[in-house]
Amino acid sequence: HIKDHSPRQLSEETVKMLIQRSQEAKQRAYCPYSKFRVGAALLTLDNCVITGCNVENACYNLGVCAERNAISKAVSEGHRSFKAIAISSDLSDQFITPCGGCRQFIREFGSNWDVYLSKPDSSYRRMTVDELLPVSFGPEQLSLRRS
Amino acid sequence: HIKDHSPRQLSEETVKMLIQRSQEAKQRAYCPYSKFRVGAALLTLDNCVITGCNVENACYNLGVCAERNAISKAVSEGHRSFKAIAISSDLSDQFITPCGGCRQFIREFGSNWDVYLSKPDSSYRRMTVDELLPVSFGPEQLSLRRS
Amino acid sequence: HIKDHSPRQLSEETVKMLIQRSQEAKQRAYCPYSKFRVGAALLTLDNCVITGCNVENACYNLGVCAERNAISKAVSEGHRSFKAIAISSDLSDQFITPCGGCRQFIREFGSNWDVYLSKPDSSYRRMTVDELLPVSFGPEQLSLRRS
Amino acid sequence: HIKDHSPRQLSEETVKMLIQRSQEAKQRAYCPYSKFRVGAALLTLDNCVITGCNVENACYNLGVCAERNAISKAVSEGHRSFKAIAISSDLSDQFITPCGGCRQFIREFGSNWDVYLSKPDSSYRRMTVDELLPVSFGPEQLSLRRS
Ligand SMILES: [Zn+2]
Ligand SMILES: [Zn+2]
Ligand SMILES: [Zn+2]
Ligand SMILES: [Zn+2]
Repeated sequence: HIKDHSPRQLSEETVKMLIQRSQEAKQRAYCPYSKFRVGAALLTLDNCVITGCNVENACYNLGVCAERNAISKAVSEGHRSFKAIAISSDLSDQFITPCGGCRQFIREFGSNWDVYLSKPDSSYRRMTVDELLPVSFGPEQLSLRRS
Repeated sequence: HIKDHSPRQLSEETVKMLIQRSQEAKQRAYCPYSKFRVGAALLTLDNCVITGCNVENACYNLGVCAERNAISKAVSEGHRSFKAIAISSDLSDQFITPCGGCRQFIREFGSNWDVYLSKPDSSYRRMTVDELLPVSFGPEQLSLRRS
Repeated sequence: HIKDHSPRQLSEETVKMLIQRSQEAKQRAYCPYSKFRVGAALLTLDNCVITGCNVENACYNLGVCAERNAISKAVSEGHRSFKAIAISSDLSDQFITPCGGCRQFIREFGSNWDVYLSKPDSSYRRMTVDELLPVSFGPEQLSLRRS
Repeated sequence: HIKDHSPRQLSEETVKMLIQRSQEAKQRAYCPYSKFRVGAALLTLDNCVITGCNVENACYNLGVCAERNAISKAVSEGHRSFKAIAISSDLSDQFITPCGGCRQFIREFGSNWDVYLSKPDSSYRRMTVDELLPVSFGPEQLSLRRS
């Protein structure tokens, strides 16, 4: 399984770039049902940026969130180690936060990396995966001793 | 939308009963793929207990967790206000915690109620929905001002 | 794994009852986002009727459809063999059909049983699981020879 | 909404290439739980090839299939019109078929395009989306008249 990486402080410039890339990705959102656009930009350990947007479905529960899109895309391109993910929406007054499903999907690839929650004005709040999903269930739990 | 209810302290007896019901529900789990049985028991505001187990699928990602099973079952029977949910698994040494997807599903019905994480020996840890899913995305966010 | 059961012709009366039960279940739908109510009623091999409705989530893709609700509920109550499932919606002019995710969930419990697609006036169309999900991927595929 | 495109016969060479790309994508699969690798390669209307693999999760039901990965990736890169998708697995003796959830996700972007089900020896079977998901529920249904 994937090892956790110590969260490393990104430069202010890198954070800005990552948020901007997530805002660009947001514009590709396919969300005719919610009309709630979300974008994500993932920074891999080897400094690639991979973006995703939400892709909805007429059967609402079969859609894919922006964060899961970005991560599964990254995996399909050979990446499994990540430094940070930035998330954008159109909410003016709140930092957009990932849904629980995405927190779990993010956590699969380590608990100790960074999520940048942003607003359209590019202000942001940084949280770790572990702060967003405390006492999480993860790959390790599946192989623990059972009674 | 659903109002939050102040979490009320359940009696020790009620907690025990709820955990036991979740352990019984665990035995109905259909989990030929993970072989990881989970049970959940939900206490509604009007003191009904409604239980669920995980139901897996050959297409792994189409399965349903125990917690989502219990809650959707409760809704289908007319309940939308809950006091607490207890969760059980076969993990000997860890309190089983809900996945992120279930935390989100639980949170739809309020941030301020209780989740009892248990072990097979019936010991438990109590956490609120909000502790399990901090700074959550919920129904309210969908109607906030957008830019 | 679960054996298929030969589809048995239900009496007209039983079909009517099943559709009616699915219509009643529809009224419990929690669908503040789609406002598209769906109900399902499942007939088990031992002639229990178990109903479900859709239960949506602010994170659209974490919701549960009516059909998956009814089946996971049935499993949680000890049933794994089914004769038929009836589905209802508010669409006036079309028989409501299950989404692909639900077809897959239904198919886990056999390819050879019946789905009753209905309209609000209780008219219906009968199809088998196999007709709704031809050349399906199922439990068997997971254990076939791989190269 | 997205218009259907008449399915156009791909050249034998194009089909071969598409299947090969899906086989390459399969090698990126993150499937520690099922150990069932799947790859997909999508041909867009403007002849880009976009690939995906399955990405699983410790909470089994939060994983993403190869087909959904490829399509959501394509959408995130600005594509919404597709000619064909090829799918690969390690099953020696059967053409791999998409799960119901993926059929629904594919169908969102039209009923009248082609799915190439393949074997590791690159032999294949062609089916249309409509053949794989007959009488489907889609974007149109959400806006039909309700009673
Ligand atoms: Zn999400
Ligand atoms: Zn769960
Ligand atoms: Zn469905
Ligand atoms: Zn699939």
